[in-house]
Amino acid sequence: MTHVDGAGDRYVVGVDFGTLSGRALVVRVGDGVELGTAVHEYHDGVLSSALPTGRPLPPDWALQNPDDYRDVLRHAVPAAVSASGVDPAAIVGIGIDFTACTVLPASADGTPLCEVPELRDRPHSWVKLWKHHAAQPHADRINALAHDRAEPWIGRYGGKISAEWQFAKGLQILEEDPEVYHRAERFIEAADWIVWQLCGVETRNVCTAGYKGIRQDGRYPSESFLTALNPAFGDFVGKLDGPLLPLGARAGTLSARAASWTGLPEGIAVAVGNVDAHVTAAAAQAVRPGRLVAIMGTSTCHVVNGSSLAEVAGMCGVVDGGISPGAWGYEAGQSGVGDIFGWFVEHAAPAGVASHERLTELAAGQPVGAHGLVALDWWNGNRSLLVNHDLSGLIVGMTLATRAQDVYRALLESTAYGTRMIIEAFVDAGVAVDDLVVAGGLTSNEFLMQIYADVTNRPLGIIGSAQGPALGSAIHAAVAAGAYPSIDEASQAMGRVDEAVYRPDPDRARAYDALYAEYRTLHDHFGRGDNDVMLRLRAIRNAAVESAAAAHETTLETVG
Amino acid sequence: MTHVDGAGDRYVVGVDFGTLSGRALVVRVGDGVELGTAVHEYHDGVLSSALPTGRPLPPDWALQNPDDYRDVLRHAVPAAVSASGVDPAAIVGIGIDFTACTVLPASADGTPLCEVPELRDRPHSWVKLWKHHAAQPHADRINALAHDRAEPWIGRYGGKISAEWQFAKGLQILEEDPEVYHRAERFIEAADWIVWQLCGVETRNVCTAGYKGIRQDGRYPSESFLTALNPAFGDFVGKLDGPLLPLGARAGTLSARAASWTGLPEGIAVAVGNVDAHVTAAAAQAVRPGRLVAIMGTSTCHVVNGSSLAEVAGMCGVVDGGISPGAWGYEAGQSGVGDIFGWFVEHAAPAGVASHERLTELAAGQPVGAHGLVALDWWNGNRSLLVNHDLSGLIVGMTLATRAQDVYRALLESTAYGTRMIIEAFVDAGVAVDDLVVAGGLTSNEFLMQIYADVTNRPLGIIGSAQGPALGSAIHAAVAAGAYPSIDEASQAMGRVDEAVYRPDPDRARAYDALYAEYRTLHDHFGRGDNDVMLRLRAIRNAAVESAAAAHETTLETVG
Repeated sequence: MTHVDGAGDRYVVGVDFGTLSGRALVVRVGDGVELGTAVHEYHDGVLSSALPTGRPLPPDWALQNPDDYRDVLRHAVPAAVSASGVDPAAIVGIGIDFTACTVLPASADGTPLCEVPELRDRPHSWVKLWKHHAAQPHADRINALAHDRAEPWIGRYGGKISAEWQFAKGLQILEEDPEVYHRAERFIEAADWIVWQLCGVETRNVCTAGYKGIRQDGRYPSESFLTALNPAFGDFVGKLDGPLLPLGARAGTLSARAASWTGLPEGIAVAVGNVDAHVTAAAAQAVRPGRLVAIMGTSTCHVVNGSSLAEVAGMCGVVDGGISPGAWGYEAGQSGVGDIFGWFVEHAAPAGVASHERLTELAAGQPVGAHGLVALDWWNGNRSLLVNHDLSGLIVGMTLATRAQDVYRALLESTAYGTRMIIEAFVDAGVAVDDLVVAGGLTSNEFLMQIYADVTNRPLGIIGSAQGPALGSAIHAAVAAGAYPSIDEASQAMGRVDEAVYRPDPDRARAYDALYAEYRTLHDHFGRGDNDVMLRLRAIRNAAVESAAAAHETTLETVG
Repeated sequence: MTHVDGAGDRYVVGVDFGTLSGRALVVRVGDGVELGTAVHEYHDGVLSSALPTGRPLPPDWALQNPDDYRDVLRHAVPAAVSASGVDPAAIVGIGIDFTACTVLPASADGTPLCEVPELRDRPHSWVKLWKHHAAQPHADRINALAHDRAEPWIGRYGGKISAEWQFAKGLQILEEDPEVYHRAERFIEAADWIVWQLCGVETRNVCTAGYKGIRQDGRYPSESFLTALNPAFGDFVGKLDGPLLPLGARAGTLSARAASWTGLPEGIAVAVGNVDAHVTAAAAQAVRPGRLVAIMGTSTCHVVNGSSLAEVAGMCGVVDGGISPGAWGYEAGQSGVGDIFGWFVEHAAPAGVASHERLTELAAGQPVGAHGLVALDWWNGNRSLLVNHDLSGLIVGMTLATRAQDVYRALLESTAYGTRMIIEAFVDAGVAVDDLVVAGGLTSNEFLMQIYADVTNRPLGIIGSAQGPALGSAIHAAVAAGAYPSIDEASQAMGRVDEAVYRPDPDRARAYDALYAEYRTLHDHFGRGDNDVMLRLRAIRNAAVESAAAAHETTLETVG
């Protein structure tokens, strides 16, 4: 990276904690220029089959080791600063973003329970990663009870809270390992925990508290609701509650310990935590109402600010100030996007065409609809609008003339239809979506981007940074350091977007309307109860696999 | 092949005319032992893009050159006799079977119109192969009118005649090339035409007349029906009608000309023509009512004798004596079977597993339902029960964990579900199906055969000959030569079947019941009008491709 440093230039560091690694980025406060970056991979990655102690884990579990997060501060931050050539003394703040809901039980001083020696071999003492899905039964009970009692907050989550979120995960701990639950004096998002590690002060951010912690209108779910779930669950909110700060606020200042880890000056501003997707809105100059940000990678997260409150069936949630103060932040998501394209290339494309490049080359010249296919993009379930991880994929229209590039294109299109379903749900509920800005790894796929513009019939901007979340965190750090009065103003100065890079072609948009109508019919038929074949096939599959495993064990016992 | 010839042994020759080649087989009359075989490939194969003259053909056309059939007599028959080591003087008869409805216009002496020099460049003068599908609009009109007029014969064809059959193809000729139509003094199945070539006598067989020629209860469709379709079509039956003979009858004796082609003795018996699938029943010892023969290759044809008449919605047809005299012969079919498996291996399996052997190895160990998938096997449309070539394939249940062998197994199973739909339609209409005998290229796939036994919950026998149709033709030749009094008796002596090689496993059969129920629901939803998405996708596809082609031509014109 080349740049000209002014004598008085100041800098901030943004740190993006992902699923497998953390990235630090050094950014100039005045204009958002990125000067140096470094990545540190988590040593223990995702713990899905066993703890580091060797103890095996049940299916659907996904844990992490919190010390891997500290290692990002120890290694990636100094490496990024060194790569930037910036004098650490000119760095005035640090901000972080995290996957969510990634959450851990801790003692009152912030020690993760998995670091307490006698609890180290207890799975429930570790960090539960966002994609830990073993709390589905607990989420189901929470949802059923919320509807039974007509809890006012359930509509803020599209009618369903996720098994990934704090209350489901907390209830699972209580019911499966009550000792760990009771010893957890704090139950905290990793985003807030790492901020605590940086500044020595416990804070909570309104974003995760709202989207993942069911905090609405200044309140968490009531004690009577919690004790109705489980008489011992009434104290759960006490473990969550803490000093709640708006996004962009200063959580505290960098402690001597964190300064020694990072090589940054003690006493600089530490911004409150935030979520990777939401912080990207600032990096993409997309905090104004009506501009939807789609962070597209293995999955897609959509965030959009609205000027008023609306309840949108099937969205992930709406939170006051959840993206930036002064607006209602809406979130939705698609649980499989790039993952599906990768699956296709790896497992369904014949030799000779098994690359994204080759398949794109073959598919891109086709007129819309020439492959005769429509797919439902539910290989990894459906987050919005159906909120059901047991849904699965469907392709219709194959003939003996169907080729790999046809199916590949149909899969790309199916994810665009899924995005259009979400946009239409927002618009129908009164939340404007005027244009889209795309961030994330899939922005480099020009063919896919044009499909999204044509299918959604909206102009598509592209974020001007390859490190959207880290840049967003740096922007939050600049606000926390007082360099800008608001996220909005910092975003204007430091964020980057290439406006309307892709514009819908009217003929293609019209042609896609007909295919989208087919998608929508199939979506509702298979997703809204007309034919629950996907759920039954899932149950049949699980029973078949379990019964075979049981038979295998019996055989082993007999042999043994 | 090894054998011991008795001094008085007699032999017959069976000739099977397929889509791409013809096969001759020399068989011992006393016990059906096969002594020598030879194949001759058609020089012109299937004419689908242009005539041999270079004249291009429209989409969906499929023609053949009748002289290719004579070449089979000239080359394959002598080669088979030579390979057998049999003295030609000991050969007492010849029988043939053919694809159907494969049909040609001819002059009164049997000269194909494409061999008349001034008609050689006219596409409608050539043989229309069974899979010529360009007469669909004509078939649609025939079906609509038949239902309007409540024609008594329409129920004998499951409610719909096919675009592949004689009346649709004849009407297409009349309306697209009236001169060829009017010069066609005869309009004749290739099966009957090649018999005419062998013995110099024009005959018609009850099998093709019934299944492909709409001859029921001794009558063809009435002149008033035909003139209602087109005022000039009233003379069509006159071109079809001829000496009609039962299966196994002697059409005549081998002419001197045909004796010189084949090297067989002049004057030996020539059996009336028959269809490849139907003649296989005799080879498989499967002419008794209740035993369904499935000839499984790229597609599947099902034939079963019944002791009484029933009308079965969606079957291909029922014909008195259509398989053997004295029984009602029922026919049904699946238009894509082995073709679909081949498509998958070629176009949808990744490197490393792209072979039937490897995919089978990986799929065979799975418990039933463990892949979580169900497919509709309509890659090549649906012949029975839905009689719609515009239907297409569907797969439901994919996840990121789905592997190629899972989809492959689901495709195998989907064709078995399709067979079960047909069996249940027969049984529901009162036509017994007690067991199955499988013939054709797919019999060597043991894994597939076991799936069929489990899904249909019936024992599965396997024909004991690799050349079922040619052996069946030889059996018919033996009957025509007077060696046996009936096809049934000849079949008992000369046919071969390995009984109940595959038996249903009760646990797997029960597990498949649940998956079949899902197939059936999807089958009816997408096949019976609830959601005609497949037909709309086909129309969108065709329009997109045509409009792109038109745009391309316009560009060329502009450039030119």
